[in-house]
Amino acid sequence: MDTNEIARPRGEKPLTNRGRWGADDDRGTLNFITAAARARGVAEARTGRVVSLAHPITPVPMAAPVAFGEHGMPSAVLQMMTFTGSPTQALTDVLLINVHHARSTHIDALAHIPTDNTVYPGVPLAEATAGATVGRSSSSAFVDGIVTRGVFLDLAPGGRLAENHAVTADDLTAAERRQGVRVESGDALVVRGGWVAADDPFGPLPTTSLSAVEWMAEREVCLYAGDIGDKLPEPSAGLPVLHSIALAQLGMPLIDCVNVAELARACAEIERYSFLFALGTIPVRGATGLPVNPLAVF
Amino acid sequence: MDTNEIARPRGEKPLTNRGRWGADDDRGTLNFITAAARARGVAEARTGRVVSLAHPITPVPMAAPVAFGEHGMPSAVLQMMTFTGSPTQALTDVLLINVHHARSTHIDALAHIPTDNTVYPGVPLAEATAGATVGRSSSSAFVDGIVTRGVFLDLAPGGRLAENHAVTADDLTAAERRQGVRVESGDALVVRGGWVAADDPFGPLPTTSLSAVEWMAEREVCLYAGDIGDKLPEPSAGLPVLHSIALAQLGMPLIDCVNVAELARACAEIERYSFLFALGTIPVRGATGLPVNPLAVF
Amino acid sequence: MDTNEIARPRGEKPLTNRGRWGADDDRGTLNFITAAARARGVAEARTGRVVSLAHPITPVPMAAPVAFGEHGMPSAVLQMMTFTGSPTQALTDVLLINVHHARSTHIDALAHIPTDNTVYPGVPLAEATAGATVGRSSSSAFVDGIVTRGVFLDLAPGGRLAENHAVTADDLTAAERRQGVRVESGDALVVRGGWVAADDPFGPLPTTSLSAVEWMAEREVCLYAGDIGDKLPEPSAGLPVLHSIALAQLGMPLIDCVNVAELARACAEIERYSFLFALGTIPVRGATGLPVNPLAVF
Amino acid sequence: MDTNEIARPRGEKPLTNRGRWGADDDRGTLNFITAAARARGVAEARTGRVVSLAHPITPVPMAAPVAFGEHGMPSAVLQMMTFTGSPTQALTDVLLINVHHARSTHIDALAHIPTDNTVYPGVPLAEATAGATVGRSSSSAFVDGIVTRGVFLDLAPGGRLAENHAVTADDLTAAERRQGVRVESGDALVVRGGWVAADDPFGPLPTTSLSAVEWMAEREVCLYAGDIGDKLPEPSAGLPVLHSIALAQLGMPLIDCVNVAELARACAEIERYSFLFALGTIPVRGATGLPVNPLAVF
Repeated sequence: MDTNEIARPRGEKPLTNRGRWGADDDRGTLNFITAAARARGVAEARTGRVVSLAHPITPVPMAAPVAFGEHGMPSAVLQMMTFTGSPTQALTDVLLINVHHARSTHIDALAHIPTDNTVYPGVPLAEATAGATVGRSSSSAFVDGIVTRGVFLDLAPGGRLAENHAVTADDLTAAERRQGVRVESGDALVVRGGWVAADDPFGPLPTTSLSAVEWMAEREVCLYAGDIGDKLPEPSAGLPVLHSIALAQLGMPLIDCVNVAELARACAEIERYSFLFALGTIPVRGATGLPVNPLAVF
Repeated sequence: MDTNEIARPRGEKPLTNRGRWGADDDRGTLNFITAAARARGVAEARTGRVVSLAHPITPVPMAAPVAFGEHGMPSAVLQMMTFTGSPTQALTDVLLINVHHARSTHIDALAHIPTDNTVYPGVPLAEATAGATVGRSSSSAFVDGIVTRGVFLDLAPGGRLAENHAVTADDLTAAERRQGVRVESGDALVVRGGWVAADDPFGPLPTTSLSAVEWMAEREVCLYAGDIGDKLPEPSAGLPVLHSIALAQLGMPLIDCVNVAELARACAEIERYSFLFALGTIPVRGATGLPVNPLAVF
Repeated sequence: MDTNEIARPRGEKPLTNRGRWGADDDRGTLNFITAAARARGVAEARTGRVVSLAHPITPVPMAAPVAFGEHGMPSAVLQMMTFTGSPTQALTDVLLINVHHARSTHIDALAHIPTDNTVYPGVPLAEATAGATVGRSSSSAFVDGIVTRGVFLDLAPGGRLAENHAVTADDLTAAERRQGVRVESGDALVVRGGWVAADDPFGPLPTTSLSAVEWMAEREVCLYAGDIGDKLPEPSAGLPVLHSIALAQLGMPLIDCVNVAELARACAEIERYSFLFALGTIPVRGATGLPVNPLAVF
Repeated sequence: MDTNEIARPRGEKPLTNRGRWGADDDRGTLNFITAAARARGVAEARTGRVVSLAHPITPVPMAAPVAFGEHGMPSAVLQMMTFTGSPTQALTDVLLINVHHARSTHIDALAHIPTDNTVYPGVPLAEATAGATVGRSSSSAFVDGIVTRGVFLDLAPGGRLAENHAVTADDLTAAERRQGVRVESGDALVVRGGWVAADDPFGPLPTTSLSAVEWMAEREVCLYAGDIGDKLPEPSAGLPVLHSIALAQLGMPLIDCVNVAELARACAEIERYSFLFALGTIPVRGATGLPVNPLAVF
């Protein structure tokens, strides 16, 4: 019995886009980013004000000269500055990146979460992972850049959602009305719950309900980015719906741990909740996800 | 005798911005990106057509199960898919990135090349590198995003520059006239010489002359991105001027190994050589550079 | 149906030591190394002649300064020399080791190969791998050192076994007789087939038959080290018996890819096929195996 | 003015073996390990009792599945368990080793500490480090194994040396007399000061005086292993003599952070302070040092 069977009442059709764009599709809901969606995006870029949606990462030096003393706490990134001669010719480094680190702003590739030993859009896991890399529904889908209109929904303006609150479709609709904006097909959705998952990824964070995922499916959201994470499963509970349904079934890329503090300030200040969403991921193919720095351009 | 003394006739003042924005500055020519420059940038984003300026990277799997046989050739990125249970709960990975790999599209932080044991804007190397990380003029300056107008100068439309050609100020001016565009203060300059340094980083690539760097300094270019690299020093010759003067003295970030094939096609097709330049680097502080995927949005 | 059911005629009891030393045992056949076995070992150390059983590894530099040009072929070890100041204070490095690299002399921990989602001596995989490390039957069992008598059986003196030959119990007994030596309880067994698995891990190597594993179980071999590897499974065939039975069921650590060229010369020259086997692995706990350099001391 | 000039009164000849074994030598004092020294070593291996001289290392998992929560403290070794299919075919891992980690038992290659931009036996640093690896006086010298007699000198039986005590030649001679043992040419010297540098590498550890290094040079010690480290330089002070003189000038490999707790117990119990010293380092060439697990066999 898979997550959809648990999640959907008997008789309803599963919430999935598997097959919608064919058996060879690797892009999922990014297919909603049409020329019209991109045009709507650039129309929002008017003044050039820019907001980064990433939490900065301070890497841990892997190999501090002994004299520098104690090694610090781990991070999503370890840094090794490399030897280039004496005197040094250049400062260079090698970075070791833990892609899905719980405190890091990163995008999940569609293959990140398998369902019944398959990944989107239904590829057997063994086939998708042949060669010790990801051959299907990997980060390759992101390499050309993701540019579209972004819409920011602040679910708890000036405060934060209650502990363990499950965000519903109604919460999203209410935010639209409050802000005077409407999410359309191909938009990237950025959600603020007022919690910083990057600071405390294992605390009593709010979570997301199935109705919210249904709402995103109906609205044809192309990508979801939130500050509240996607609560991890209790023992014997199902998987969180953003990862198990939105990502794995709808083929909707997720950006975990976005930083919305400055975005919330900017939107409130200019009273506009839509912007150009511009994401050029590092151009690494075949990965299960990538660290990112999405930009909101107003 | 430093590079400037070699490069400049006696009596001329050195080509440098060290000190121009104070002793605490870490941003160099990114200071030219004013609100006006950004506004000029977003004014170029009209249709939403997007071009990536990065060469995709196919990582080498570090730890292929033995049955998969031989390990492939190295890359700028090594990938280790990690164990998450049996059956697997999630596909995850760790990436090892060689930042300044000669075939990878990457940005150089201002501290990448020291001069006389100092880095921009004059910080002693020991101070800038305390703690086995980079404390000054590092990738921290890029984390907020670099968004401005981009201008593309194609120095050899439909072909490529001669082997070992040294690009001059006149070459740049000629391209401007041919294309009907003018580089202004705060613009990001993208140059095409028709060579793909990423494919053959050690071949007879064209290089850049001091007059071209002077031109960039006069025009107040905020960032240089080229396909032809910056030829490496012969034994006993000086350092290449883009790295030793533009980066280290002017404080102008360089993007090595950009991919301009699609950009050249797009610009020729729409007969416009300016665009919104949007770069959200991975948000890693303290590094000597970062792999990047700059986007040109038309 | 597990490997034992395939391998053993119906009715015979499975070839296994699971449970023999209790549910908490992590050492498997290393339990055969009694004080008597060690005493027998040191009695073989008479002149101090030393032979290494490891293939040397030339690491690949991860981050060569760009001027050094092309990156070489991968290896079991990647090396990153680290920055320690300018002028350099010390030469230091960070090594990235792919433990089970097909060309590297390495020891397999008992947990390396799971059977029916359990590892020796019957621990569920989820329990053994909690915390993203190996909590049971890991390299921790090797950290105190493995010192005992070693016996070398040369199955093809001066030549090599036929392609795809399956080594039998009779082959081992014949070598004992030819050499005038007898493997006793607690001995480390070093076998030469005349192939160098490290040079050509995917060629038509000889393999090992179940009868040879039964022989090792009867003789109470504490550890197996061979030059011929353990042929990998054909599609739809069972797992190789050294890994699936000797390692996973008997709890007998395996050393893959040993280098026996010099050992064969030394034994033939002094007409003695037994020696002090001394292995001090790097003291890393919780790993699935470790690179090793076992020493034969005569 | 180099360390020798500081350390030696004017007129005395520098304390060095540079040149003693020729310009091509990479082995330094390991040249003292003659057949006689090895024979003396194996004569000490009588019962087979084995003591490891390494501190076990618990690696930090690099990429714990998110559900496992917080990442632990760094270690000399980071571990990445790798994906091998679902269900998993094998447990495998990749280890990232910081060779000279202050808490890890490791051997220093002779090239580890340069003097006046040269490494033992006088090779210019640029030549020794060509190709981003170590071409001279590297770990290659250790790969064949280091087997000889080991002598243990306990400088503070049952207790520990005073804070900041500088061990002298007299301390070493006094220990010899107290224990009834004498260090001879080619012996590996293991010293206990009663401090565990691995636990507190930056505390008020005792250090080693030049007279002790002179004593080792006279006795023709082949290798030094101690528990007290080699105190790091104060700002403006010279380098510690073990690293700057014994290693860099005498060419005497050092093992930092040895674990002598069990060794001290064993020696006191059997009233013998000499043993077979057996060290088979991982067979990695070209490194600046290696993690080790030296064995004392009685």
